[in-house]
Amino acid sequence: MGGLSGSAHTAERAERVPKQDRSRATRQRLLEAALACLAERGWAGSTVTVVAEHAGVSRGAAQHHFPTREDLFTAAVEYVAEERSTALRALFPDGAAPGDRHAVVAALVDLYTGPLFRAALHLWVAASHEEQLRGRVTELEARVGRETHRIAVDLLGADESRPGARETVQGLLDMARGLGLANLLTDDAARRDRVVEQWARLLEQALEGEAD
Amino acid sequence: MGGLSGSAHTAERAERVPKQDRSRATRQRLLEAALACLAERGWAGSTVTVVAEHAGVSRGAAQHHFPTREDLFTAAVEYVAEERSTALRALFPDGAAPGDRHAVVAALVDLYTGPLFRAALHLWVAASHEEQLRGRVTELEARVGRETHRIAVDLLGADESRPGARETVQGLLDMARGLGLANLLTDDAARRDRVVEQWARLLEQALEGEAD
Repeated sequence: MGGLSGSAHTAERAERVPKQDRSRATRQRLLEAALACLAERGWAGSTVTVVAEHAGVSRGAAQHHFPTREDLFTAAVEYVAEERSTALRALFPDGAAPGDRHAVVAALVDLYTGPLFRAALHLWVAASHEEQLRGRVTELEARVGRETHRIAVDLLGADESRPGARETVQGLLDMARGLGLANLLTDDAARRDRVVEQWARLLEQALEGEAD
Repeated sequence: MGGLSGSAHTAERAERVPKQDRSRATRQRLLEAALACLAERGWAGSTVTVVAEHAGVSRGAAQHHFPTREDLFTAAVEYVAEERSTALRALFPDGAAPGDRHAVVAALVDLYTGPLFRAALHLWVAASHEEQLRGRVTELEARVGRETHRIAVDLLGADESRPGARETVQGLLDMARGLGLANLLTDDAARRDRVVEQWARLLEQALEGEAD
């Protein structure tokens, strides 16, 4: 009995594991398609149906994973933001040295110039006049913002116990967001590189100054 | 004949002037209503009909002034941006003294935290995926951006012939835009004030450093 029950359990598990894998893969495909869709078409052009089609998933399966449009697109931005955070930390696996500060600033700014920022921007802007999005997106923005700030402080080696250090880093991230906005309609890469170089220098002085 | 013609001309002018005034007042009401509408409802909710109604103007009169939706809303953002630029210069009628730099940075950042920025943001974001808007908004953004940069350089007393000074000012305006974005869903004024204070200090050092 024990043996039989045990082997039934094992068989059940063997079936369940690939099913979970498939489910996870479907979910991931949906999230990636949702981000791309939001970045390219904006909120008005982004529906669960369009995303399901792009992901090669039935509408029913998409709705099983994400019951509402708001669920799908906020999850997509959160998922890709987490991926980007992980990738950013992985660029400096042993932490960043003081000599890496220019590279760190450039990598932080890069967070705001690709499809993730574009998609997030569409979501933020839609949330500013759609009540059913506002609360969720506000919460998501705060969560992602805190995590990005934490990474920036770590990688820049900023000592937040010193007056002004926290605001120095915050202002840098605000500048990064502004650079993302400036890249929305035209390729702003050449100007951005010059601004990043100069602001990395200012930051260097500011953080060294704080350390005196 | 000369006298008659002259007096007819005068009578015609007397009639025409108030007509021009009325027309200018109508145009201005439409522009202001369009900006408020765009800031509150976003691009999808902003039509000529809605704006005409808010401005208390017939749809026909609105279309006489602005034949297309794109005409109306790009003109609205340009009009209000010019008004804000003029107001910013008027804050420092004799130019700004070095001691005014914190006030200048705060005033520049203020450009990006009200209805103008909100409306412009909706327009930029819509232009990123609507072809009939893209060219016009790109051109408008460049024009407004150049003018804001010019004002910032003047008021901050930045010497752009010195290496880095131009990028210092550009980065500041990017930061201001990022602060505007951070204010979209929540009132970010308290954090913003601290960031402005810190970066005004860093900028002060940077521009003084350049001047050495």
